[in-house]
Amino acid sequence: MTDAGLLSPVSASPLVGALTGDRAVLAAILAVESGWAAVLEKAGLAPAGAAAVVASAAEAGRYDSADIARRAQGGGNPVIPLLADLRKQVAALDTGNAGAGKAVHTSLTSQDVLDTALMLVARNTVEALLADLKGTTTALAALAEQHADTLCVGRSLTQHSLPFTFGLRAAQWFQGVAAAGRYLENLEFPVQFGGAAGTLAAGTVLTSGSSATPFSLADALASQLGLAPAPAPWHTNRLAITSLGHALAAVLDASGKIVADVLFLSRPEVGELAEPRAAGRGVSSAMPQKQNPVLSVLVRSAALQASGLAAQLHVAAANFNDERPDGAWHTEWPALRQLLALALGAAGHVRELAEGLQVFPEGMRRNLDLAGPLLLAEGVGAAVSPLLEDKDGLNGKQQLQAVVDQTLQAPPADQAATYRKLLREAVPASVLPDVRLEELLNPASYLGEAAEISRRILAAYPDFANSPADTDANGASRG
Amino acid sequence: MTDAGLLSPVSASPLVGALTGDRAVLAAILAVESGWAAVLEKAGLAPAGAAAVVASAAEAGRYDSADIARRAQGGGNPVIPLLADLRKQVAALDTGNAGAGKAVHTSLTSQDVLDTALMLVARNTVEALLADLKGTTTALAALAEQHADTLCVGRSLTQHSLPFTFGLRAAQWFQGVAAAGRYLENLEFPVQFGGAAGTLAAGTVLTSGSSATPFSLADALASQLGLAPAPAPWHTNRLAITSLGHALAAVLDASGKIVADVLFLSRPEVGELAEPRAAGRGVSSAMPQKQNPVLSVLVRSAALQASGLAAQLHVAAANFNDERPDGAWHTEWPALRQLLALALGAAGHVRELAEGLQVFPEGMRRNLDLAGPLLLAEGVGAAVSPLLEDKDGLNGKQQLQAVVDQTLQAPPADQAATYRKLLREAVPASVLPDVRLEELLNPASYLGEAAEISRRILAAYPDFANSPADTDANGASRG
Amino acid sequence: MTDAGLLSPVSASPLVGALTGDRAVLAAILAVESGWAAVLEKAGLAPAGAAAVVASAAEAGRYDSADIARRAQGGGNPVIPLLADLRKQVAALDTGNAGAGKAVHTSLTSQDVLDTALMLVARNTVEALLADLKGTTTALAALAEQHADTLCVGRSLTQHSLPFTFGLRAAQWFQGVAAAGRYLENLEFPVQFGGAAGTLAAGTVLTSGSSATPFSLADALASQLGLAPAPAPWHTNRLAITSLGHALAAVLDASGKIVADVLFLSRPEVGELAEPRAAGRGVSSAMPQKQNPVLSVLVRSAALQASGLAAQLHVAAANFNDERPDGAWHTEWPALRQLLALALGAAGHVRELAEGLQVFPEGMRRNLDLAGPLLLAEGVGAAVSPLLEDKDGLNGKQQLQAVVDQTLQAPPADQAATYRKLLREAVPASVLPDVRLEELLNPASYLGEAAEISRRILAAYPDFANSPADTDANGASRG
Amino acid sequence: MTDAGLLSPVSASPLVGALTGDRAVLAAILAVESGWAAVLEKAGLAPAGAAAVVASAAEAGRYDSADIARRAQGGGNPVIPLLADLRKQVAALDTGNAGAGKAVHTSLTSQDVLDTALMLVARNTVEALLADLKGTTTALAALAEQHADTLCVGRSLTQHSLPFTFGLRAAQWFQGVAAAGRYLENLEFPVQFGGAAGTLAAGTVLTSGSSATPFSLADALASQLGLAPAPAPWHTNRLAITSLGHALAAVLDASGKIVADVLFLSRPEVGELAEPRAAGRGVSSAMPQKQNPVLSVLVRSAALQASGLAAQLHVAAANFNDERPDGAWHTEWPALRQLLALALGAAGHVRELAEGLQVFPEGMRRNLDLAGPLLLAEGVGAAVSPLLEDKDGLNGKQQLQAVVDQTLQAPPADQAATYRKLLREAVPASVLPDVRLEELLNPASYLGEAAEISRRILAAYPDFANSPADTDANGASRG
Repeated sequence: MTDAGLLSPVSASPLVGALTGDRAVLAAILAVESGWAAVLEKAGLAPAGAAAVVASAAEAGRYDSADIARRAQGGGNPVIPLLADLRKQVAALDTGNAGAGKAVHTSLTSQDVLDTALMLVARNTVEALLADLKGTTTALAALAEQHADTLCVGRSLTQHSLPFTFGLRAAQWFQGVAAAGRYLENLEFPVQFGGAAGTLAAGTVLTSGSSATPFSLADALASQLGLAPAPAPWHTNRLAITSLGHALAAVLDASGKIVADVLFLSRPEVGELAEPRAAGRGVSSAMPQKQNPVLSVLVRSAALQASGLAAQLHVAAANFNDERPDGAWHTEWPALRQLLALALGAAGHVRELAEGLQVFPEGMRRNLDLAGPLLLAEGVGAAVSPLLEDKDGLNGKQQLQAVVDQTLQAPPADQAATYRKLLREAVPASVLPDVRLEELLNPASYLGEAAEISRRILAAYPDFANSPADTDANGASRG
Repeated sequence: MTDAGLLSPVSASPLVGALTGDRAVLAAILAVESGWAAVLEKAGLAPAGAAAVVASAAEAGRYDSADIARRAQGGGNPVIPLLADLRKQVAALDTGNAGAGKAVHTSLTSQDVLDTALMLVARNTVEALLADLKGTTTALAALAEQHADTLCVGRSLTQHSLPFTFGLRAAQWFQGVAAAGRYLENLEFPVQFGGAAGTLAAGTVLTSGSSATPFSLADALASQLGLAPAPAPWHTNRLAITSLGHALAAVLDASGKIVADVLFLSRPEVGELAEPRAAGRGVSSAMPQKQNPVLSVLVRSAALQASGLAAQLHVAAANFNDERPDGAWHTEWPALRQLLALALGAAGHVRELAEGLQVFPEGMRRNLDLAGPLLLAEGVGAAVSPLLEDKDGLNGKQQLQAVVDQTLQAPPADQAATYRKLLREAVPASVLPDVRLEELLNPASYLGEAAEISRRILAAYPDFANSPADTDANGASRG
Repeated sequence: MTDAGLLSPVSASPLVGALTGDRAVLAAILAVESGWAAVLEKAGLAPAGAAAVVASAAEAGRYDSADIARRAQGGGNPVIPLLADLRKQVAALDTGNAGAGKAVHTSLTSQDVLDTALMLVARNTVEALLADLKGTTTALAALAEQHADTLCVGRSLTQHSLPFTFGLRAAQWFQGVAAAGRYLENLEFPVQFGGAAGTLAAGTVLTSGSSATPFSLADALASQLGLAPAPAPWHTNRLAITSLGHALAAVLDASGKIVADVLFLSRPEVGELAEPRAAGRGVSSAMPQKQNPVLSVLVRSAALQASGLAAQLHVAAANFNDERPDGAWHTEWPALRQLLALALGAAGHVRELAEGLQVFPEGMRRNLDLAGPLLLAEGVGAAVSPLLEDKDGLNGKQQLQAVVDQTLQAPPADQAATYRKLLREAVPASVLPDVRLEELLNPASYLGEAAEISRRILAAYPDFANSPADTDANGASRG
Repeated sequence: MTDAGLLSPVSASPLVGALTGDRAVLAAILAVESGWAAVLEKAGLAPAGAAAVVASAAEAGRYDSADIARRAQGGGNPVIPLLADLRKQVAALDTGNAGAGKAVHTSLTSQDVLDTALMLVARNTVEALLADLKGTTTALAALAEQHADTLCVGRSLTQHSLPFTFGLRAAQWFQGVAAAGRYLENLEFPVQFGGAAGTLAAGTVLTSGSSATPFSLADALASQLGLAPAPAPWHTNRLAITSLGHALAAVLDASGKIVADVLFLSRPEVGELAEPRAAGRGVSSAMPQKQNPVLSVLVRSAALQASGLAAQLHVAAANFNDERPDGAWHTEWPALRQLLALALGAAGHVRELAEGLQVFPEGMRRNLDLAGPLLLAEGVGAAVSPLLEDKDGLNGKQQLQAVVDQTLQAPPADQAATYRKLLREAVPASVLPDVRLEELLNPASYLGEAAEISRRILAAYPDFANSPADTDANGASRG
């Protein structure tokens, strides 16, 4: 055993291991070979009964993935040693001498098999990932609605900017995850079939004299495996791979944005949010009182890895020389698998976070009040400056900026009173009655379209806002 | 002057400078402010005549971009100092006291302006880029058709694999560029409008009592500038940016793949291709006889940069904390601009390369012949092994592998004769007549579906295969 | 003009432009050619008087860097067109027919000149950078000493961990910058001289019959330019380049760590620090009251770019094929220049930040008190558990963990009292007198070796802790 | 089992697994805890006999690393669950009630343990790596000496440049590996000890009243484990980590450069080199005759991954906020481990390649002859142009350039004769006797200092040029 995630706790879950580990890859390679045998037999290009023998031989439990990994150094990829073992199994199981061996790998090349197998692994992982993403967005949509009126302070460049709502913050988190999720949903996972050089030469020989063509076989394989057909071999054009990498990075970007916020908002000085508690989570090896936001920390560690891994796929893609390249293809595999594992691992944690997030409206209000009345200076300016006449060569806007500047000289605790007083001096009550001034200084009056923006966001992704309760992926394995 | 491309010759063209340089960015910022004034005036939210004054003030020639760059350190972005200058110009030009100043930047925040401006820069650059990509694909499609029957050798992992055609190679290059181009075409360039905190608070005040809403204003701005509308502010959700980065990297990946091939195929030992000649190109400072493939070298240098720049956009996206972040936004700008410049710069060179590529069929044939008859061993095996009976415990496939192994012992120059002889010994003429054997040993007989794959690829991207001759971008500026 | 930093405000300063801009590169190329002429003349390999003519012709003001950038597309690098112009100038200035042209570029290749020129640019930039780093470390050392006893709370994984001092925090910042600075100081900037293929063939011809050798010429050039000698050409071994990139990234890492802390600690909810104020800095385009921590924001944007640029240098280094490569070399230039510009730009801001940082000990104390007495649970446990006898099957450590767990059930405001009460119940006064308990609950009593660690850190980098006041780089240009 | 390298064949060797796998990490964590117990007991801070109990409990075989990996999700790192298990083992083994539990982890924090453990893993891996690097450099030094006079053609930007020797090429490969190796050798692997917040607070309590100090304990731990002492905790200053990452990337860069050359030079069209043959290596799943250069392909795949992984370490380092960060630390682990595994995996293959490289001098000569006489145009120009008088307004250099230009018009096969003829016409025999002309046209006469450069390179790294034959790392496990 080499790596079961000791140094990557974010993805050290049974589900992630089951979908992206060596055994999953091995099973996918076998599924491709087995699917191909079925396609050949159905097309009359392999003996009757061959597919059943190959299917039986293709049970993953028959093979030792660690041994195959080691032997992969010989030809440079795992298909070659696995094929040798598979052929032995087929021969042993073909007790009726059906000639099942003729259905194994015929006219394929190892890139056909491995590219297709990795598409299967990716497709399966993405399905589980989407279930978690929709669990997350469902929870975030609920938070957005529930907290549509929960006041908090908006922040930009770390400083308080304007009144905000926690509902809109949750809606923006939703938007990030849903947009990445939709991007993922629209991806295609194409089958690969080109033969040794991408000309389908062996496939042409194989199908000559039959009603099948290499193209019809490829389409049948895609259909058999639930993958997308491909108009042509894509041995050296890797947009499907780099786009998948980009999509997974986008999921991790959206996750990273959420946890960056949660990590800040759950700090003791801030106290607006807390991670859901769970037994044994967040403990420290030294400090008995600590409750670390471990879900967010782990997700952040995944988000910070995404960029380098997605970049590796582009480095590879730009170096796909010849009809099949001299190292670039091999460069893709670990990056793609790692991105799948990190995205799925992180998605489970983000979902748990979203579903159990502790929200403290009173903490939000406290920070909003801390911001003081200057937070409303933009709104006051917009409403009041048109009412002011020029004075001492200053227009209304400039007069109000002077009020702000003077207020900023006062100690923070006095700024609320100072601002009110200076405003009152600058703007006669005849022009701005007290009641209207108080209204302008009420944060709830200056939320703009916060609620409507949330509604628009949720409406833009209807299938992410109402996902059924049972689309549980990582959750299941957590139970 | 700081950087006009002395260290980035791949993008040191007037066109790239004009579309992506500081002046283009400055002009785009001014176009956004001017477009906004027009929107406000049309909505009755700015005085009549204001938009015309702002439009006149917004001529880029009035501003000193180097000075604004320097002053951008104050607020952290170029919008702030430019606005100060713009307001002075508007005041000076508003000779009729129309109150044009009220139309400037009202209810916007600097991120609204800069995000929208960068979308404008991107949109304009991508238009030019697509023109070059279609120039390239048109040329590659012609090569694919012209050389549908031009035999060459296919290569995988650097070694000769099977007979191939140069037409299919060109078609695969086409597929890479066309797929990246289509991805680019499908991108949206959304307008940004959220106001200071993303609540549209100032916009709500501004439109209160009018029939407009902040959303209608945003849509009008999008329409005015030719950008896509956005359902909601995307201040902290950066999928539009990272996807643009991914698309530009994909263009550079496809370009990198092509030039990796050209660089090899135009080596003196290979002699299958040569770059188009042009006066003063390819010269060396030391060696009078050299003709360097400079187009490809420059494109390769751009392709090797794409991954890091696309990664930078993901690093940023994962760190978009708060309602507007504390550095991540600023991190995007140089990477995005650099990717635009590199993609456009490289695309011009790739187009010139594709349009003027020198193709040497005789060189291709020479290398194919060098590969010798073993190149056809896969096809011979597929055709002949079913005809053979078991012998000495070896099945047909194994007997033919033994023939190959024995042939490999012979010196390369003798392998053709040896292979023929051994095959003849292994397979009786009764089973495989001489004429059929010779057919099997003719590379042209083992091209599989090369021609049909090319046709399918071209058919999958009809709008890239027949682009009008006049869609000239970099070309124009090269002339 | 293409790029004067409009989208990279962190490095849009005159100093950065002067040291890393196109003009600086052009001047460095000319300095190499001029230095070479001097070396040749001194060795009797160029006519007397030639060096003076070349030196005069090599004034950078005579050349148009934008025009040369454009013409660099021909040969792929800027040396080639610049040489053509230089030769014209030399011819024109060689009014005495000294044959000065024979001293220009003789036996060099363009990579010799450009590698050496970039080492010059790097050396000059690093000198200025080190001055700023030492300004920073001097300021941080002063903060470390001044605040050796300023209590604050330590934080790990966002949560309060133990009592800490601001002095130690400043000392750790110091350690980061000083370690990166020392790494930079130890770098060598080697001269490059290999001739067209790295064999020094032309140099051998040139020196045959003279007492000089190509190696002695290379050493003389290094000495002339103040660079390090190189034992051999390094055309294809790029450790000097990647190590420089790593060092610059390390400077930005250390800077990024500091500003990550400052950005958090100067948030309104935290209030432990504030950036130095300066006229016109930190302003917002929308919100009149905001004071953005712009120095830190800009530095963070630079820190987030470092990794991708350093990676680009490794991508290049791994692809330096042949005796001189087919694109990898060109890939280095923009990344190296950009890293130099970002590091120097950021260093100026970090220095200003360190020199003017506003420190609020009362804010630190407030947050420490907020942490409550559980912050001392580790220390209480260590001191008290050995005093406790087993009880109800729990050892001392477990009994104290139970106290902590029970305390955590109380509302935060009551935890101090609860903890004291429960501790008193668990530990008899006979074993732990009240006065000792109070001592254990005083944060100042649990600072460990904070002061000594600070002293050790400063002592480890003596040349960074006492830099002379006048080593001003960015500062000078800010003045 | 999750990942034993099925998708990373380059590092799927038993040695790499043994040194960098989960079990190695687990063993290193246990070694740190065990070493600490020994240090405490020796200092009189733990009961006599405790260390022996802990040492026995710390046998890695007692623990289930996959289970610990899963439980690491709770606290975010593997130390916490492992500690729980270790404490149980210690309790069970402490049959004499020595109180051995008091020696476990006392005053440490999990970052102390994991940072130190990863330094142990790195140190062990780097030792094995250096053995392989020295095996490689020893083989390359031998090639450099053996082929000091083996003529070949030098290439730049893919084109033939000048005569070269294979010996110098091997020497340059040597330089790359040796320089990276020396960099690695100079790295320090520091112990980490800071306690929960980096103040050594618990350590201070622990040592109060003893003659030990936390610093003396840390030094003793370093000495116990064979690591370097650290002047102060480096919880948030990660230069040791990023520099290690840089060094490993540099090893992979140098490896990548070598295999880029080998991959080209062993192409069928080039035929200058071949990889060593080994049974079962280089086979294809489809083409029976193929011999793929698998060692180089796998190494190239590792080299293309280095940049992204090294970048990840910088991304982390720039985000080490607070006294211990909120995700950045966790981000380091997988990248560091992956770099160690790739570097060691690749080094074994490169060593095998260097030790068994097949060199074909006749192939080199053939390609040199292909280059034709113009390859010597630089040398001819340098030697002859001073001998020529101006003619038709052209100086000697220009006349010779005209000869080159005219020669280039001739078909390649005729260029040798044409060049000779034109030269003879341009330069009278009185000025340049035939015998001297022939000498100038002999490639062996224009090698410059090739041999001396090789000697200088080898001399610059004496400890890499003569490594003992038995420093076998990967080799042993291959046997």
